[in-house]
Amino acid sequence: MSEADAVTEAPARRGRPGYDREQMLHAAVALFNEQGYDATSVAALAARLGLSKAALYHHFSSKEEVLEVAVGAALDGLEGVLADATETSAGDRLAEVLRGAVGVLVAQLPAVTLLLRVRGNSEVERRALERRRAFDQAVTEIVRAAQADGAVRADVDASVATRLLFGMVNSLVEWYRPGGPEDAEALARDVLTVALDGLRTRQPSDAADRNDEATA
Amino acid sequence: MSEADAVTEAPARRGRPGYDREQMLHAAVALFNEQGYDATSVAALAARLGLSKAALYHHFSSKEEVLEVAVGAALDGLEGVLADATETSAGDRLAEVLRGAVGVLVAQLPAVTLLLRVRGNSEVERRALERRRAFDQAVTEIVRAAQADGAVRADVDASVATRLLFGMVNSLVEWYRPGGPEDAEALARDVLTVALDGLRTRQPSDAADRNDEATA
Repeated sequence: MSEADAVTEAPARRGRPGYDREQMLHAAVALFNEQGYDATSVAALAARLGLSKAALYHHFSSKEEVLEVAVGAALDGLEGVLADATETSAGDRLAEVLRGAVGVLVAQLPAVTLLLRVRGNSEVERRALERRRAFDQAVTEIVRAAQADGAVRADVDASVATRLLFGMVNSLVEWYRPGGPEDAEALARDVLTVALDGLRTRQPSDAADRNDEATA
Repeated sequence: MSEADAVTEAPARRGRPGYDREQMLHAAVALFNEQGYDATSVAALAARLGLSKAALYHHFSSKEEVLEVAVGAALDGLEGVLADATETSAGDRLAEVLRGAVGVLVAQLPAVTLLLRVRGNSEVERRALERRRAFDQAVTEIVRAAQADGAVRADVDASVATRLLFGMVNSLVEWYRPGGPEDAEALARDVLTVALDGLRTRQPSDAADRNDEATA
Protein backbone atom coordinates (compact mmCIF):
# COMPACT_ATOMS: atom_id res chain seq x y z
CA MET A 1 0.00 0.00 0.00
CA SER A 2 1.45 3.38 -0.98
CA GLU A 3 1.53 6.38 1.34
CA ALA A 4 -1.07 8.14 -0.82
CA ASP A 5 -3.45 5.20 -0.31
CA ALA A 6 -2.90 5.32 3.42
CA VAL A 7 -4.06 8.92 3.51
CA THR A 8 -7.32 8.18 1.70
CA GLU A 9 -8.14 5.12 3.85
CA ALA A 10 -9.69 5.63 7.28
CA PRO A 11 -7.47 4.03 9.96
CA ALA A 12 -10.58 2.26 11.37
CA ARG A 13 -10.74 0.11 8.24
CA ARG A 14 -7.24 -1.32 8.78
CA GLY A 15 -8.40 -4.56 10.44
CA ARG A 16 -8.34 -5.26 14.15
CA PRO A 17 -6.98 -2.43 16.31
CA GLY A 18 -3.25 -2.92 16.92
CA TYR A 19 -3.10 -5.63 14.28
CA ASP A 20 -0.98 -4.06 11.55
CA ARG A 21 0.11 -5.40 8.19
CA GLU A 22 3.38 -6.67 9.65
CA GLN A 23 1.61 -8.69 12.34
CA MET A 24 -0.90 -10.03 9.82
CA LEU A 25 2.02 -11.19 7.69
CA HIS A 26 3.59 -12.83 10.71
CA ALA A 27 0.42 -14.78 11.52
CA ALA A 28 -0.09 -15.76 7.88
CA VAL A 29 3.47 -17.10 7.54
CA ALA A 30 3.03 -19.15 10.73
CA LEU A 31 -0.17 -20.68 9.31
CA PHE A 32 1.46 -21.43 5.93
CA ASN A 33 4.34 -23.16 7.73
CA GLU A 34 1.95 -25.22 9.86
CA GLN A 35 -0.47 -26.32 7.16
CA GLY A 36 1.45 -25.84 3.94
CA TYR A 37 0.90 -22.86 1.65
CA ASP A 38 -1.10 -24.76 -0.97
CA ALA A 39 -3.36 -26.37 1.64
CA THR A 40 -4.20 -23.02 3.33
CA SER A 41 -7.38 -21.38 2.04
CA VAL A 42 -8.06 -17.64 2.14
CA ALA A 43 -10.97 -18.47 4.49
CA ALA A 44 -8.61 -20.29 6.88
CA LEU A 45 -6.18 -17.38 6.67
CA ALA A 46 -8.93 -14.84 7.46
CA ALA A 47 -10.13 -17.03 10.36
CA ARG A 48 -6.61 -17.19 11.84
CA LEU A 49 -6.33 -13.42 11.57
CA GLY A 50 -9.78 -12.90 13.09
CA LEU A 51 -10.83 -10.97 9.99
CA SER A 52 -13.52 -11.37 7.37
CA LYS A 53 -12.27 -12.36 3.92
CA ALA A 54 -13.30 -8.88 2.73
CA ALA A 55 -11.18 -7.23 5.43
CA LEU A 56 -8.25 -9.47 4.50
CA TYR A 57 -8.60 -8.51 0.82
CA HIS A 58 -8.47 -4.90 1.94
CA HIS A 59 -4.85 -5.49 3.02
CA PHE A 60 -3.66 -8.06 0.49
CA SER A 61 -5.03 -8.56 -2.99
CA SER A 62 -4.58 -12.35 -2.79
CA LYS A 63 -3.04 -15.25 -0.84
CA GLU A 64 -0.21 -15.08 -3.37
CA GLU A 65 0.52 -11.47 -2.45
CA VAL A 66 0.95 -12.52 1.19
CA LEU A 67 3.41 -15.19 0.06
CA GLU A 68 5.21 -12.73 -2.21
CA VAL A 69 5.71 -10.15 0.55
CA ALA A 70 6.83 -12.79 3.08
CA VAL A 71 9.36 -14.66 0.92
CA GLY A 72 10.40 -11.34 -0.64
CA ALA A 73 11.52 -10.11 2.79
CA ALA A 74 13.60 -13.27 3.31
CA LEU A 75 15.16 -12.92 -0.15
CA ASP A 76 15.86 -9.20 0.44
CA GLY A 77 17.72 -10.23 3.60
CA LEU A 78 19.85 -12.83 1.82
CA GLU A 79 20.59 -10.56 -1.14
CA GLY A 80 21.49 -7.80 1.32
CA VAL A 81 24.15 -10.06 2.81
CA LEU A 82 25.80 -10.31 -0.60
CA ALA A 83 25.41 -6.61 -1.39
CA ASP A 84 26.78 -5.54 2.02
CA ALA A 85 29.79 -7.90 2.02
CA THR A 86 32.94 -5.83 2.60
CA GLU A 87 35.72 -8.44 2.74
CA THR A 88 38.00 -8.12 -0.26
CA SER A 89 39.47 -11.62 -0.37
CA ALA A 90 37.08 -14.27 -1.73
CA GLY A 91 37.81 -16.68 1.13
CA ASP A 92 36.95 -14.07 3.77
CA ARG A 93 33.90 -12.96 1.76
CA LEU A 94 32.63 -16.56 1.72
CA ALA A 95 32.86 -16.71 5.52
CA GLU A 96 31.19 -13.30 5.77
CA VAL A 97 28.30 -14.37 3.51
CA LEU A 98 27.80 -17.65 5.40
CA ARG A 99 27.77 -15.80 8.72
CA GLY A 100 25.32 -13.26 7.30
CA ALA A 101 23.04 -15.98 5.88
CA VAL A 102 22.86 -17.68 9.29
CA GLY A 103 21.99 -14.27 10.76
CA VAL A 104 19.14 -13.73 8.28
CA LEU A 105 17.86 -17.26 8.90
CA VAL A 106 17.83 -16.76 12.65
CA ALA A 107 16.30 -13.25 12.45
CA GLN A 108 13.63 -14.27 9.92
CA LEU A 109 13.19 -17.96 10.73
CA PRO A 110 9.49 -18.29 9.73
CA ALA A 111 9.88 -16.41 6.43
CA VAL A 112 13.04 -18.34 5.47
CA THR A 113 11.31 -21.62 6.39
CA LEU A 114 8.46 -20.68 4.05
CA LEU A 115 10.94 -19.67 1.33
CA LEU A 116 12.75 -23.02 1.54
CA ARG A 117 9.47 -24.90 1.03
CA VAL A 118 8.49 -23.00 -2.12
CA ARG A 119 8.18 -25.51 -4.95
CA GLY A 120 7.37 -23.36 -7.98
CA ASN A 121 3.64 -24.04 -8.30
CA SER A 122 2.78 -20.42 -9.20
CA GLU A 123 4.29 -17.33 -10.80
CA VAL A 124 5.18 -15.85 -7.39
CA GLU A 125 6.88 -19.09 -6.36
CA ARG A 126 8.77 -19.35 -9.64
CA ARG A 127 10.10 -15.81 -9.23
CA ALA A 128 11.19 -16.65 -5.67
CA LEU A 129 13.00 -19.77 -6.92
CA GLU A 130 14.65 -17.64 -9.60
CA ARG A 131 15.99 -15.24 -6.96
CA ARG A 132 17.20 -18.17 -4.83
CA ARG A 133 19.03 -19.58 -7.85
CA ALA A 134 20.66 -16.20 -8.55
CA PHE A 135 21.78 -16.01 -4.91
CA ASP A 136 23.23 -19.55 -5.05
CA GLN A 137 24.95 -18.64 -8.31
CA ALA A 138 26.55 -15.55 -6.75
CA VAL A 139 27.81 -17.60 -3.79
CA THR A 140 29.13 -20.26 -6.19
CA GLU A 141 31.14 -17.49 -7.91
CA ILE A 142 32.64 -16.51 -4.55
CA VAL A 143 33.56 -20.16 -3.87
CA ARG A 144 35.11 -20.38 -7.33
CA ALA A 145 37.14 -17.20 -6.76
CA ALA A 146 38.27 -18.53 -3.36
CA GLN A 147 39.38 -21.75 -5.06
CA ALA A 148 41.35 -19.74 -7.63
CA ASP A 149 43.02 -17.85 -4.75
CA GLY A 150 43.93 -21.15 -3.05
CA ALA A 151 41.84 -20.25 0.02
CA VAL A 152 39.26 -22.99 -0.62
CA ARG A 153 40.08 -26.55 -1.72
CA ALA A 154 39.64 -27.10 -5.44
CA ASP A 155 38.89 -30.85 -5.30
CA VAL A 156 35.16 -30.27 -4.65
CA ASP A 157 33.15 -28.69 -7.47
CA ALA A 158 32.21 -25.09 -6.56
CA SER A 159 28.48 -25.58 -7.14
CA VAL A 160 28.41 -28.86 -5.18
CA ALA A 161 30.33 -27.15 -2.36
CA THR A 162 27.83 -24.26 -2.34
CA ARG A 163 24.88 -26.67 -2.21
CA LEU A 164 26.44 -28.59 0.68
CA LEU A 165 27.20 -25.36 2.56
CA PHE A 166 23.65 -24.12 2.18
CA GLY A 167 22.29 -27.60 2.91
CA MET A 168 23.95 -27.23 6.28
CA VAL A 169 22.85 -23.60 6.80
CA ASN A 170 19.26 -24.20 5.66
CA SER A 171 18.88 -27.30 7.83
CA LEU A 172 18.83 -24.93 10.81
CA VAL A 173 15.16 -24.22 10.08
CA GLU A 174 14.45 -27.87 11.02
CA TRP A 175 15.72 -27.62 14.56
CA TYR A 176 16.89 -24.13 15.57
CA ARG A 177 14.43 -22.27 17.78
CA PRO A 178 15.22 -18.66 18.68
CA GLY A 179 16.87 -17.89 22.00
CA GLY A 180 19.01 -14.83 22.74
CA PRO A 181 21.30 -13.10 20.25
CA GLU A 182 24.27 -15.05 21.63
CA ASP A 183 22.70 -18.30 20.44
CA ALA A 184 22.66 -16.94 16.90
CA GLU A 185 26.32 -15.99 17.11
CA ALA A 186 27.31 -19.36 18.56
CA LEU A 187 25.33 -21.04 15.80
CA ALA A 188 27.05 -19.02 13.07
CA ARG A 189 30.43 -19.85 14.61
CA ASP A 190 29.58 -23.58 14.66
CA VAL A 191 28.43 -23.54 11.03
CA LEU A 192 31.60 -21.72 9.93
CA THR A 193 33.75 -24.10 11.95
CA VAL A 194 32.23 -27.28 10.54
CA ALA A 195 31.87 -26.00 6.96
CA LEU A 196 35.19 -24.24 6.57
CA ASP A 197 37.54 -25.98 9.01
CA GLY A 198 35.88 -29.41 9.16
CA LEU A 199 35.03 -31.57 12.13
CA ARG A 200 38.19 -33.60 12.03
CA THR A 201 41.00 -32.29 14.18
CA ARG A 202 43.93 -31.07 12.10
CA GLN A 203 47.25 -32.95 12.18
CA PRO A 204 47.90 -34.76 15.49
CA SER A 205 51.18 -32.81 15.56
CA ASP A 206 49.14 -29.57 15.82
CA ALA A 207 47.42 -30.86 18.94
CA ALA A 208 50.78 -32.01 20.30
CA ASP A 209 52.25 -28.55 19.64
CA ARG A 210 49.39 -26.93 21.51
CA ASN A 211 49.84 -29.32 24.42
CA ASP A 212 53.56 -28.51 24.50
CA GLU A 213 52.79 -24.80 24.62
CA ALA A 214 50.23 -25.33 27.37
CA THR A 215 52.64 -27.29 29.54
CA ALA A 216 55.76 -25.24 28.68
CA MET B 1 1.89 -60.24 3.60
CA SER B 2 3.23 -63.57 4.89
CA GLU B 3 4.09 -66.46 2.61
CA ALA B 4 1.14 -68.41 4.01
CA ASP B 5 -1.20 -65.59 2.93
CA ALA B 6 0.35 -65.56 -0.51
CA VAL B 7 -0.48 -69.23 -0.94
CA THR B 8 -4.14 -68.77 -0.07
CA GLU B 9 -4.53 -65.71 -2.35
CA ALA B 10 -5.08 -66.30 -6.05
CA PRO B 11 -2.32 -64.52 -8.02
CA ALA B 12 -5.02 -62.98 -10.28
CA ARG B 13 -6.24 -60.88 -7.34
CA ARG B 14 -2.85 -59.16 -6.91
CA GLY B 15 -3.74 -56.01 -8.86
CA ARG B 16 -2.59 -55.28 -12.41
CA PRO B 17 -0.46 -57.99 -14.03
CA GLY B 18 3.23 -57.21 -13.56
CA TYR B 19 2.42 -54.53 -10.97
CA ASP B 20 3.67 -56.03 -7.72
CA ARG B 21 3.59 -54.64 -4.20
CA GLU B 22 7.07 -53.15 -4.59
CA GLN B 23 6.10 -51.21 -7.70
CA MET B 24 2.86 -50.05 -6.09
CA LEU B 25 4.89 -48.74 -3.18
CA HIS B 26 7.23 -46.95 -5.57
CA ALA B 27 4.34 -45.20 -7.35
CA ALA B 28 2.68 -44.31 -4.05
CA VAL B 29 5.87 -42.74 -2.64
CA ALA B 30 6.30 -40.69 -5.83
CA LEU B 31 2.74 -39.37 -5.47
CA PHE B 32 3.20 -38.57 -1.76
CA ASN B 33 6.38 -36.63 -2.60
CA GLU B 34 4.62 -34.71 -5.39
CA GLN B 35 1.42 -33.80 -3.57
CA GLY B 36 2.30 -34.20 0.10
CA TYR B 37 1.24 -37.24 2.14
CA ASP B 38 -1.58 -35.49 4.00
CA ALA B 39 -3.02 -34.00 0.81
CA THR B 40 -3.08 -37.35 -1.04
CA SER B 41 -6.40 -39.20 -0.78
CA VAL B 42 -6.79 -42.97 -1.06
CA ALA B 43 -8.87 -42.31 -4.19
CA ALA B 44 -6.01 -40.31 -5.77
CA LEU B 45 -3.58 -43.07 -4.79
CA ALA B 46 -5.79 -45.77 -6.37
CA ALA B 47 -6.17 -43.64 -9.51
CA ARG B 48 -2.38 -43.21 -9.83
CA LEU B 49 -1.96 -46.97 -9.46
CA GLY B 50 -4.74 -47.70 -11.96
CA LEU B 51 -6.57 -49.71 -9.32
CA SER B 52 -9.96 -49.50 -7.67
CA LYS B 53 -9.90 -48.49 -4.00
CA ALA B 54 -11.04 -52.04 -3.17
CA ALA B 55 -8.08 -53.53 -5.08
CA LEU B 56 -5.72 -51.12 -3.30
CA TYR B 57 -7.12 -52.15 0.11
CA HIS B 58 -6.42 -55.74 -0.88
CA HIS B 59 -2.71 -54.91 -0.81
CA PHE B 60 -2.52 -52.28 1.93
CA SER B 61 -4.92 -51.92 4.83
CA SER B 62 -4.68 -48.10 4.75
CA LYS B 63 -2.79 -45.11 3.35
CA GLU B 64 -0.86 -45.12 6.62
CA GLU B 65 0.33 -48.68 6.00
CA VAL B 66 1.79 -47.55 2.66
CA LEU B 67 3.62 -44.74 4.48
CA GLU B 68 4.78 -47.13 7.22
CA VAL B 69 6.27 -49.63 4.77
CA ALA B 70 7.94 -46.89 2.69
CA VAL B 71 9.57 -44.89 5.50
CA GLY B 72 10.27 -48.17 7.34
CA ALA B 73 12.46 -49.29 4.44
CA ALA B 74 14.41 -46.01 4.54
CA LEU B 75 14.85 -46.30 8.33
CA ASP B 76 15.93 -49.95 8.02
CA GLY B 77 18.60 -48.79 5.58
CA LEU B 78 19.91 -46.07 7.91
CA GLU B 79 19.84 -48.32 10.98
CA GLY B 80 21.62 -51.00 8.94
CA VAL B 81 24.47 -48.56 8.31
CA LEU B 82 24.97 -48.24 12.08
CA ALA B 83 24.58 -51.98 12.73
CA ASP B 84 27.00 -52.92 9.94
CA ALA B 85 29.71 -50.39 10.84
CA THR B 86 33.02 -52.25 11.27
CA GLU B 87 35.53 -49.48 11.99
CA THR B 88 36.79 -49.69 15.55
CA SER B 89 37.93 -46.09 16.07
CA ALA B 90 35.09 -43.62 16.59
CA GLY B 91 36.52 -41.14 14.08
CA ASP B 92 36.67 -43.76 11.33
CA ARG B 93 33.22 -45.09 12.30
CA LEU B 94 31.79 -41.57 11.92
CA ALA B 95 33.18 -41.36 8.38
CA GLU B 96 31.87 -44.87 7.65
CA VAL B 97 28.36 -44.00 8.90
CA LEU B 98 28.27 -40.73 6.91
CA ARG B 99 29.39 -42.56 3.76
CA GLY B 100 26.77 -45.26 4.38
CA ALA B 101 24.01 -42.70 5.00
CA VAL B 102 24.79 -40.97 1.69
CA GLY B 103 24.61 -44.42 0.05
CA VAL B 104 21.18 -45.15 1.54
CA LEU B 105 19.95 -41.71 0.53
CA VAL B 106 21.11 -42.16 -3.06
CA ALA B 107 19.80 -45.75 -3.30
CA GLN B 108 16.42 -44.93 -1.74
CA LEU B 109 16.03 -41.27 -2.68
CA PRO B 110 12.19 -41.16 -2.87
CA ALA B 111 11.66 -43.07 0.41
CA VAL B 112 14.24 -40.95 2.27
CA THR B 113 12.68 -37.77 0.83
CA LEU B 114 9.31 -38.90 2.20
CA LEU B 115 10.89 -39.79 5.56
CA LEU B 116 12.46 -36.34 5.88
CA ARG B 117 9.07 -34.68 5.33
CA VAL B 118 7.30 -36.67 8.05
CA ARG B 119 5.97 -34.21 10.64
CA GLY B 120 4.39 -36.46 13.29
CA ASN B 121 0.71 -36.01 12.44
CA SER B 122 -0.16 -39.69 13.05
CA GLU B 123 0.97 -42.69 15.06
CA VAL B 124 2.96 -44.08 12.11
CA GLU B 125 4.68 -40.71 11.64
CA ARG B 126 5.46 -40.37 15.33
CA ARG B 127 7.06 -43.84 15.37
CA ALA B 128 9.14 -42.89 12.33
CA LEU B 129 10.28 -39.65 14.04
CA GLU B 130 11.15 -41.71 17.12
CA ARG B 131 13.39 -43.99 15.05
CA ARG B 132 15.01 -40.94 13.37
CA ARG B 133 15.74 -39.47 16.79
CA ALA B 134 17.26 -42.77 17.99
CA PHE B 135 19.46 -42.85 14.88
CA ASP B 136 20.59 -39.22 15.43
CA GLN B 137 21.28 -40.06 19.07
CA ALA B 138 23.46 -43.04 18.11
CA VAL B 139 25.44 -40.86 15.66
CA THR B 140 25.79 -38.17 18.33
CA GLU B 141 27.34 -40.81 20.62
CA ILE B 142 29.87 -41.68 17.90
CA VAL B 143 30.72 -37.97 17.49
CA ARG B 144 31.12 -37.69 21.28
CA ALA B 145 33.41 -40.73 21.37
CA ALA B 146 35.45 -39.31 18.47
CA GLN B 147 35.77 -36.04 20.41
CA ALA B 148 36.97 -37.96 23.49
CA ASP B 149 39.57 -39.71 21.28
CA GLY B 150 40.75 -36.35 19.92
CA ALA B 151 39.77 -37.33 16.36
CA VAL B 152 36.97 -34.78 16.14
CA ARG B 153 37.19 -31.19 17.40
CA ALA B 154 35.58 -30.71 20.80
CA ASP B 155 34.69 -27.00 20.40
CA VAL B 156 31.39 -27.79 18.65
CA ASP B 157 28.70 -29.53 20.71
CA ALA B 158 28.30 -33.16 19.58
CA SER B 159 24.56 -32.91 18.99
CA VAL B 160 24.90 -29.61 17.06
CA ALA B 161 27.70 -31.18 14.99
CA THR B 162 25.50 -34.21 14.23
CA ARG B 163 22.61 -31.98 13.18
CA LEU B 164 24.86 -29.94 10.89
CA LEU B 165 26.36 -33.11 9.37
CA PHE B 166 22.94 -34.57 8.63
CA GLY B 167 21.66 -31.18 7.51
CA MET B 168 24.32 -31.39 4.81
CA VAL B 169 23.64 -35.08 4.00
CA ASN B 170 19.86 -34.71 3.98
CA SER B 171 19.98 -31.62 1.76
CA LEU B 172 20.99 -33.95 -1.06
CA VAL B 173 17.31 -34.89 -1.51
CA GLU B 174 16.73 -31.29 -2.64
CA TRP B 175 19.03 -31.43 -5.63
CA TYR B 176 20.68 -34.82 -6.19
CA ARG B 177 19.13 -36.82 -9.04
CA PRO B 178 20.39 -40.38 -9.61
CA GLY B 179 23.03 -40.99 -12.25
CA GLY B 180 25.47 -43.89 -12.26
CA PRO B 181 26.96 -45.56 -9.16
CA GLU B 182 30.10 -43.42 -9.56
CA ASP B 183 28.07 -40.27 -8.96
CA ALA B 184 27.00 -41.67 -5.60
CA GLU B 185 30.61 -42.39 -4.64
CA ALA B 186 31.78 -38.96 -5.75
CA LEU B 187 28.95 -37.41 -3.77
CA ALA B 188 29.86 -39.34 -0.61
CA ARG B 189 33.49 -38.29 -1.04
CA ASP B 190 32.47 -34.62 -1.40
CA VAL B 191 30.26 -34.77 1.70
CA LEU B 192 33.03 -36.39 3.75
CA THR B 193 35.57 -33.87 2.47
CA VAL B 194 33.48 -30.80 3.32
CA ALA B 195 32.11 -32.14 6.62
CA LEU B 196 35.25 -33.70 8.04
CA ASP B 197 38.13 -31.79 6.43
CA GLY B 198 36.39 -28.48 5.76
CA LEU B 199 36.37 -26.35 2.65
CA ARG B 200 39.23 -24.11 3.69
CA THR B 201 42.64 -25.23 2.51
CA ARG B 202 44.85 -26.29 5.41
CA GLN B 203 47.96 -24.22 6.26
CA PRO B 204 49.50 -22.48 3.23
CA SER B 205 52.74 -24.25 4.24
CA ASP B 206 51.06 -27.61 3.45
CA ALA B 207 50.35 -26.48 -0.09
CA ALA B 208 53.91 -25.15 -0.39
CA ASP B 209 55.26 -28.53 0.82
CA ARG B 210 53.18 -30.35 -1.76
CA ASN B 211 54.44 -28.01 -4.48
CA ASP B 212 58.03 -28.61 -3.38
CA GLU B 213 57.50 -32.37 -3.61
CA ALA B 214 55.88 -32.03 -7.02
CA THR B 215 58.76 -30.02 -8.42
CA ALA B 216 61.53 -31.92 -6.58
